[in-house]
Amino acid sequence: MRADGPVHAETIVVAWSECDAAGKVFYPNFYVWFDRATERLFGAAQWSLAELRRRFGIVGMPLLESRAEYQNACLHGAELRLQSRVADWSGKTFTVVHRVTHADGRPALQGWEKRIFVIADDARPAGVRAIAAPEEIVARLGGRRDSRE
Amino acid sequence: MRADGPVHAETIVVAWSECDAAGKVFYPNFYVWFDRATERLFGAAQWSLAELRRRFGIVGMPLLESRAEYQNACLHGAELRLQSRVADWSGKTFTVVHRVTHADGRPALQGWEKRIFVIADDARPAGVRAIAAPEEIVARLGGRRDSRE
Amino acid sequence: MRADGPVHAETIVVAWSECDAAGKVFYPNFYVWFDRATERLFGAAQWSLAELRRRFGIVGMPLLESRAEYQNACLHGAELRLQSRVADWSGKTFTVVHRVTHADGRPALQGWEKRIFVIADDARPAGVRAIAAPEEIVARLGGRRDSRE
Amino acid sequence: MRADGPVHAETIVVAWSECDAAGKVFYPNFYVWFDRATERLFGAAQWSLAELRRRFGIVGMPLLESRAEYQNACLHGAELRLQSRVADWSGKTFTVVHRVTHADGRPALQGWEKRIFVIADDARPAGVRAIAAPEEIVARLGGRRDSRE
Repeated sequence: MRADGPVHAETIVVAWSECDAAGKVFYPNFYVWFDRATERLFGAAQWSLAELRRRFGIVGMPLLESRAEYQNACLHGAELRLQSRVADWSGKTFTVVHRVTHADGRPALQGWEKRIFVIADDARPAGVRAIAAPEEIVARLGGRRDSRE
Repeated sequence: MRADGPVHAETIVVAWSECDAAGKVFYPNFYVWFDRATERLFGAAQWSLAELRRRFGIVGMPLLESRAEYQNACLHGAELRLQSRVADWSGKTFTVVHRVTHADGRPALQGWEKRIFVIADDARPAGVRAIAAPEEIVARLGGRRDSRE
Repeated sequence: MRADGPVHAETIVVAWSECDAAGKVFYPNFYVWFDRATERLFGAAQWSLAELRRRFGIVGMPLLESRAEYQNACLHGAELRLQSRVADWSGKTFTVVHRVTHADGRPALQGWEKRIFVIADDARPAGVRAIAAPEEIVARLGGRRDSRE
Repeated sequence: MRADGPVHAETIVVAWSECDAAGKVFYPNFYVWFDRATERLFGAAQWSLAELRRRFGIVGMPLLESRAEYQNACLHGAELRLQSRVADWSGKTFTVVHRVTHADGRPALQGWEKRIFVIADDARPAGVRAIAAPEEIVARLGGRRDSRE
């Protein structure tokens, strides 16, 4: 029951392509970063989507909730540090937390993605159903476990 | 102190360009919709960004927080209804709520943007500072008012 | 052998979400418009991707080439007119042309997408192969025909 | 009159966030890569937009034309190599060429951005006008020179 798992970390220099007319990151782009960081975090733990499918039949990690709180604006050219990890597993859900900081240490923003693993299930209208996170996945990604039965 | 203000409503048919490899809307795109709906909601109330700048020197409406809760997946080709309104004003912040429903009435997702109005202020490191929402803006957009002093 | 087929036309008011730090449309967004307009043009002719798949086994319309020439900048808030049509069919390729004009008639930009129809083919490394455009598709979409054998 | 200038090179692993419902890179995203690569190419040559503005009053590098030719599809997870350089300077325009190759050497696509440098000019309707590329910029970026007078 480890509290801490691997952290995906990357440096992002804010590109022109990511900014809005105020010269700051257009906020949906932060979620693009989050999604990509989650993919990289899982990939680095040898749980690429392809591998998840092969091993567990998992066809996706849809979101139940996403959220971000903004602290200090990210201007064009700013050098940022993004750090992402699985914070916790609870029931069938897990939460990836993303922390973005400026080069001088000031917090830029923090984000959360609450996701589930789904497998194909033709009996359901959506064609998929959620499963509890397989223990092997949890083991490699760490994070707090709440009330998993 | 009206509880209800104008609602921006639009129909969105999910385009190929908005979908991910699972054939569903890539979730950051929902925030793109939210941002655009907020712009249209304000514009319809005659508070375009250009007008806000002209009248109040407001140079932007940056976010303090954004959030979405997902209920039913939005597949390629789905016809959706987006409805957006200012839900409340509290201190210097205001919250725009966005509700997306499927054509058959099922909820798709709901989103929130918590924003502030900022004016230029060279004395601040960020170059801007938050102001309380001018009464004229509030009057035209409606929404609940919490503890505005 | 009609020279002219249906035209998809739409009005676009440039949103904040589409602009770059210069307050103009970030140019890749024009291609997003093109892709969506092509989808809508085909859909209006009753050739949605779902229908193309059902009738002909067509699984996609990948691009061979895309191009745009820019004439007059599209600023935030500008009202634009986008008109899209199939310009020609040549061999296995077809070209969709997209014309964007300002409300005052000035040309904004023009774009071209050169595409093919592909069907599944497991024998190919890419898993798909190009087919000549079925006559029924051509008939409904119009456009010039060059050297189709 | 060097024929060859610096090359910006980067490795891109195709992310989920960049793919469409066919599991391939959604093509406008290639142009996002191009734009960012151009920014990085110039930045590496010490010609960031901030520096261009400071030294020459250049306020942007708008496009006259953009184009891409697609050879081999880029699937989710593919490892790609992007190489970008200024190919030529001609009159007031310059062309940045972007070559994307698969890890196994197969070409993926090639792109071109034809741009100009603009400075502020309130006498023009667009508020800017094109200038000939300053010699110092050309010197650091290399590329063929056609008919510059």
